[in-house]
Amino acid sequence: MPAVVPIIDQLSAIDTPWDPRQAATFNGQDIKVVYLQGDFIWHSHSDTDEVFLVQEGSMQMGVREAGVESALTLNKGDLYVVPMGQEHRPFNADARVLLFEKRGTVNTGDFEGEVPGHIHQTDGRSGSD
Amino acid sequence: MPAVVPIIDQLSAIDTPWDPRQAATFNGQDIKVVYLQGDFIWHSHSDTDEVFLVQEGSMQMGVREAGVESALTLNKGDLYVVPMGQEHRPFNADARVLLFEKRGTVNTGDFEGEVPGHIHQTDGRSGSD
Repeated sequence: MPAVVPIIDQLSAIDTPWDPRQAATFNGQDIKVVYLQGDFIWHSHSDTDEVFLVQEGSMQMGVREAGVESALTLNKGDLYVVPMGQEHRPFNADARVLLFEKRGTVNTGDFEGEVPGHIHQTDGRSGSD
Repeated sequence: MPAVVPIIDQLSAIDTPWDPRQAATFNGQDIKVVYLQGDFIWHSHSDTDEVFLVQEGSMQMGVREAGVESALTLNKGDLYVVPMGQEHRPFNADARVLLFEKRGTVNTGDFEGEVPGHIHQTDGRSGSD
């Protein structure tokens, strides 16, 4: 029998930003806990939608469509679905967030440059067991 | 560009129990908001895992394995994954919950009897568009 997962306690206990951790999995999807602080990099995911659910704090989500950038504000209790293939960038963040995405997703997506030092690039293997 | 979904506000606004409503969808999965009050019926879902994330209040989850019943308590911030095919029954509930499951899932699953009047049986079409 699966165990109860104290997911909000897990989320509150994170002390390193941009370091998503798997909390649960269902139907081939991961549920991850992550602390967002400051700015991420522009990237996209070619094979998964990505859901952000803000549990504490607030953040902005930059979205780039046809070369035009726009930004959305997400406060506590807000959810946003980044569609597969959509260029996006969380920024101006101080938020504790639940992420929902396909198992094995790498947080930097299709980004190919050097990842800034404040970001922990996941290997996509969490949840692959 | 998708809109921000004030999912916790939607969850707080529900006034009818056992009446799950689609709030968002991603990767073929629905995210639903639901108010659980009292007891549900024993059932299972043959084609989907089902995730409960308690946002307010508390509930118990009955689980039946090989004819043996057990119960788990879920408080605010707790998450529980009911595996595909697992007989289960939310009960003793006064909770506002996020549900995650395959699009088109009927809330009473494989239950074949008469559904009690306090339960709204979904038609599974929410999220099928």
